[in-house]
Amino acid sequence: MAGRVGGSAAVYEAMVSFGLINTPGAWAGPPKLDRHVGDGQRVLVLGAGIGGLATALMLDQAGYRCEVLEVNSRAGGRSLTARPGTHIHQEGHRDQVCQFDKGLYLNMGPGRLPYHHRRILHYCRELNVPLEVYVMETTANLFQTQKAFGGRPQVNRRVANDTRGYIAELLAKAVYKGSLDDELQGDELEEMKNQLLCLLKVFGDLGKNEACDHAELNEPCLSCSSGCADCDQSCGQCGACIQKALDCFKYSGSTRSGCAKPLEVDQTCIPPDPLAFSELLRSEFWTDRFYQPVEYEWQPTLFQPVGGMDRIVDGFVRRVGHLIDYQSVVKKVEISDDGVAVSYTDHMTGDLVRKTADFCVSNIPLPILARQVEANFTDDYGQAVDQAKFGAAAKVGWQANARFWEDDAYGIYGGISWIDDLITQMWYPSNDYFSQKGTLTGAYIYDEDAEQFGRWGLERRLKEARKGALKLHPEFGSDQIVPMNKGLSIAWQQVPYAAGGWPDWNDDDPEDAKAYHRLLGSDRGRFFVVGDQVSPLPGWQEGALMSAEHVVELITELKDEADLEKVHRAPSTRRLVQGRF
Amino acid sequence: MAGRVGGSAAVYEAMVSFGLINTPGAWAGPPKLDRHVGDGQRVLVLGAGIGGLATALMLDQAGYRCEVLEVNSRAGGRSLTARPGTHIHQEGHRDQVCQFDKGLYLNMGPGRLPYHHRRILHYCRELNVPLEVYVMETTANLFQTQKAFGGRPQVNRRVANDTRGYIAELLAKAVYKGSLDDELQGDELEEMKNQLLCLLKVFGDLGKNEACDHAELNEPCLSCSSGCADCDQSCGQCGACIQKALDCFKYSGSTRSGCAKPLEVDQTCIPPDPLAFSELLRSEFWTDRFYQPVEYEWQPTLFQPVGGMDRIVDGFVRRVGHLIDYQSVVKKVEISDDGVAVSYTDHMTGDLVRKTADFCVSNIPLPILARQVEANFTDDYGQAVDQAKFGAAAKVGWQANARFWEDDAYGIYGGISWIDDLITQMWYPSNDYFSQKGTLTGAYIYDEDAEQFGRWGLERRLKEARKGALKLHPEFGSDQIVPMNKGLSIAWQQVPYAAGGWPDWNDDDPEDAKAYHRLLGSDRGRFFVVGDQVSPLPGWQEGALMSAEHVVELITELKDEADLEKVHRAPSTRRLVQGRF
Repeated sequence: MAGRVGGSAAVYEAMVSFGLINTPGAWAGPPKLDRHVGDGQRVLVLGAGIGGLATALMLDQAGYRCEVLEVNSRAGGRSLTARPGTHIHQEGHRDQVCQFDKGLYLNMGPGRLPYHHRRILHYCRELNVPLEVYVMETTANLFQTQKAFGGRPQVNRRVANDTRGYIAELLAKAVYKGSLDDELQGDELEEMKNQLLCLLKVFGDLGKNEACDHAELNEPCLSCSSGCADCDQSCGQCGACIQKALDCFKYSGSTRSGCAKPLEVDQTCIPPDPLAFSELLRSEFWTDRFYQPVEYEWQPTLFQPVGGMDRIVDGFVRRVGHLIDYQSVVKKVEISDDGVAVSYTDHMTGDLVRKTADFCVSNIPLPILARQVEANFTDDYGQAVDQAKFGAAAKVGWQANARFWEDDAYGIYGGISWIDDLITQMWYPSNDYFSQKGTLTGAYIYDEDAEQFGRWGLERRLKEARKGALKLHPEFGSDQIVPMNKGLSIAWQQVPYAAGGWPDWNDDDPEDAKAYHRLLGSDRGRFFVVGDQVSPLPGWQEGALMSAEHVVELITELKDEADLEKVHRAPSTRRLVQGRF
Repeated sequence: MAGRVGGSAAVYEAMVSFGLINTPGAWAGPPKLDRHVGDGQRVLVLGAGIGGLATALMLDQAGYRCEVLEVNSRAGGRSLTARPGTHIHQEGHRDQVCQFDKGLYLNMGPGRLPYHHRRILHYCRELNVPLEVYVMETTANLFQTQKAFGGRPQVNRRVANDTRGYIAELLAKAVYKGSLDDELQGDELEEMKNQLLCLLKVFGDLGKNEACDHAELNEPCLSCSSGCADCDQSCGQCGACIQKALDCFKYSGSTRSGCAKPLEVDQTCIPPDPLAFSELLRSEFWTDRFYQPVEYEWQPTLFQPVGGMDRIVDGFVRRVGHLIDYQSVVKKVEISDDGVAVSYTDHMTGDLVRKTADFCVSNIPLPILARQVEANFTDDYGQAVDQAKFGAAAKVGWQANARFWEDDAYGIYGGISWIDDLITQMWYPSNDYFSQKGTLTGAYIYDEDAEQFGRWGLERRLKEARKGALKLHPEFGSDQIVPMNKGLSIAWQQVPYAAGGWPDWNDDDPEDAKAYHRLLGSDRGRFFVVGDQVSPLPGWQEGALMSAEHVVELITELKDEADLEKVHRAPSTRRLVQGRF
């Protein structure tokens, strides 16, 4: 018996070795380090984002003497939760002070934790941060475009399921007609076709029509698909058989798309007329991130910290807050084979202070490091630092004085409405359901759109965001329901020292691959970069933790940078952050 | 300005009338009744299930004098939550006493509340029952069958996304080859085909292969799909162009199915090899309810009461508990044009008591009413009562001493694993994530399988359930992790006075339609049936509430039974309860 209560790890190991479970080679926890490994060596950590905080925590526990220099007066970096009184600084704009009512909050940076991001979930447990489910998608969410449906918002369940239905119908017909016999090779072509037709009937909910219901043949996929030979036998006349089969492969609407009329005791659910396929195609809904929830990072189950994403930052600060020097602006880094020296302005005196250490770990966004810190990097390292770009990203936050989206007319509990508009998306809160008020993410924008948005004044941003929101929810027309003066916006590329929303790696650019790879190693064994910027998960806190572990393993010599795998492609920010292809 | 804070109903009405939102004709709340409507008229409610409780609450508030006769010593009927000490009675078996550790519980009856079940959500608010998200599906859930994959459980994300990929690939090829030109009629055939190909690329995540990546043509759906004419122009040589397009329509695996290797800083996500299409087809996974989460009742967002489904029952009991006579066995119902008389055995004295009232509302399961209560129904009403059947349903509950499914090797947080085995499904808890212990629904079985299961002794049931569970989770091999002596089972058809898991209406049977319709009306304006059994939502608490509202509206003359729509089809229990077609 390998299994013991509380020691199920042993059970897994046994099972994995017996081949009983498919393990993806699961993460085994943070590096296990003796508390004397560091032996008093000094480490300067630059930046108290998640990557810097985690590095400091691990190294502190391993006996290193860490000091964290943080430019802001708070930790967390892009993990920012707006609450009443929160200040948002952006270059070129007046400071915003969050006017939300007491108890309301909104994540202005990262907002979700996928189930397979094991490290961040681990730290939430480790740091006593309670989690709740983050709902990425509900079938009550909306999609809106001016290209189709007369501009009327369409409910997710209809767009999603009607599309499945049409896809299944078309493929069933092609299979039935034999058009794909070449593709479905093998000895068991007829059986495969039968199975595929049966799959498609369920996949698309086909054949929900009178003609199919009343066909003697209620499982045409099982008896008539293989052509007239079987047809004659099981269904009599062949032409009629084929017609019945085709009726049963027709997509005629589905209750998956909801009910056309409200249910009553004398009214069972009848499916709404399906959206016209030509309208669905014309809408190009798939280009507006409609299928983002299908991507790995956004698949259920996702979580969020109860009370705001910065609860994780608070958890780290409880452990390593005493190591942080806030409002310390790093000016210069001098690296040698023996150690590092970092010069920064002291927040009390304003004087330039120069500190030496055995190692320096920089969580500073690479473009800031490149532009605002003087450093004697080796050429190749410096080139890699220069190569890294950050992408623009902007969000808008609204307070709503009534959770109108949860009311009977919408029934929206969490998830995201997608829109072919500058605002791109509207997030509904996955917390405090059924309460009185709530906050909405009224825009979440990337790239050029975010650049444009950032250039606008604060008032114009909110006006434009409201214009987009009105296409989804006329309630935005009421200042009593969604007060403009409680709206907020942030364009991360304008936040001092943030550089942008995330590292903008292009997986098609070999220069990016080269730079990324170089930054996984150190400069002279003394200077290291951490953060999502040097991880396969740009824009995700899990990436920051992965990177921090990696650097801790290098510093503690659990790993040798010579053993790093060659990286042929940089991570794809488009796919990993934006859910685009 | 129609909108006022807290009065958003007016806003909707305005919007609906402006055509600004698509309202499905949303439910407008329970009947609004003056508190003197009942004027002291007497109502006997038979049965304190959700339907009976809601009837009593509404009528009590409207000035009727209600008395509820309940055969059990608890209210709630099939809404049963097992907690330490809960007794489970079944005919032909010894009583089980739940041995779960303190704080653990499991719903043995209904377990979820869909977002569009507006009435039950309303009552949760009304009765101060806090809700949390119920996770129906996570892509970490498993599917297992002996028919394919060597019997190894497969993770949902691979089955779901690889299937999408193959479907999209096959359809894209058929479209590209022109096999479906007849189906895609219209003036804009070429444009439609282009759009459809673009949709399919995103729908199935096609073309993630070297050949497509390196094609000059990285958007073949936009430039080459329309055949050689365009091809020559944009891509040079036509044959090469077609080959490129086909490469880009190929499903070559997707990161939606996860990552083949754990991510590391030097290891970005590479998709696992897709499951073979022939294996997917051979597995017939779609016949094992894999797509049940796509059906309307199970679409996100779903909820569950924090602490167990019976919190809703508790909420009703706080309001109308004083009206309930427990352990009262109804023996006889006498109906006349002027009123009703009900005879029942008093729980204290054992004597037969005869009570008269103006109205009688029966929440007794129809087969119990038919078999165990003597009643002078009119012929057609009595025939309708006799026609109604209940279906068998069984569940198994396990305590697990470690939430092994949440560990790194599985990463399962809620949802259901589907299995081609008697146990049919395994539910993981959507509550108390990341805690030490938990409870699992180790089987949820219907129809003949449930009949069979019910006939077995309690020990055999658990042994068979464990056998099934082992195919998903070897941890069930350890009595320390999943102790047999804390296992529970229930076969609802054996629970005294329950009759089964739900009313078993067959939507194809005209006799069922006729009986269902008749039971929506009264017997002589005096006797009424309530419950999910006379609702379009058999097996759902929402149905019980809908039915209760309907009967209250009849009794209070807000509605006339002569105005009922003719019901041509009974509700489909298969589809609505079992997610089958």
